[in-house]
Amino acid sequence: MTTSPDPRPFYQSHVFCCTNTRPPVHPRGCCSEKGSEKLRNYMKVRAKELGIAETRINAAGCLDRCEFGPTMVIYPEGVWYTYRDAADIDEILEVHVKGGGRVARLMLQPEQKVPHD
Amino acid sequence: MTTSPDPRPFYQSHVFCCTNTRPPVHPRGCCSEKGSEKLRNYMKVRAKELGIAETRINAAGCLDRCEFGPTMVIYPEGVWYTYRDAADIDEILEVHVKGGGRVARLMLQPEQKVPHD
Repeated sequence: MTTSPDPRPFYQSHVFCCTNTRPPVHPRGCCSEKGSEKLRNYMKVRAKELGIAETRINAAGCLDRCEFGPTMVIYPEGVWYTYRDAADIDEILEVHVKGGGRVARLMLQPEQKVPHD
Repeated sequence: MTTSPDPRPFYQSHVFCCTNTRPPVHPRGCCSEKGSEKLRNYMKVRAKELGIAETRINAAGCLDRCEFGPTMVIYPEGVWYTYRDAADIDEILEVHVKGGGRVARLMLQPEQKVPHD
């Protein structure tokens, strides 16, 4: 059996920011109560201002790492970040998305998960 | 400068289904008016039933390929699909997510985009 190679990527960098909202009483909390919607909007505008092409700063539903939120994941590399403010977003855009590097201090590790029942 | 290797993937297969909703009069339409929310919920339940592990069937905001929707993208491979019904979802789950193959008849190509103003 031969298979064709996959088409070239549609986006060079596809960022998904969790913007999920839960009721305030929910024990896991949610990214949106920690400002993820505003910060995702900021990232989208800032990426454009920086002239970063072939990139999409997407909203996403719950990424299921709520306790470490706000969270984002950048594909195709599959690197996850937590972030708090515009300065964190700027650093992720400059160092990772534009520069191809990593912002080690904000990266989530695979061990950072919450066991499900 | 040395850089550490990226952490191992948190999900082996991370599926993002656009569930964006636009007003009915919008010229681009939207994935949700074509049933994407129900189909994403179906895919989530079905993946669990099939015992597909380390996979997340995520909701996403607008993926910006509305005219070919409902659309999904599967990372890290970055393969895009259009789908219409539960049979399409079953095939994507069995052949691509579980089997590591491709469902050629449903794949979107990079040329399938709508030029922005």
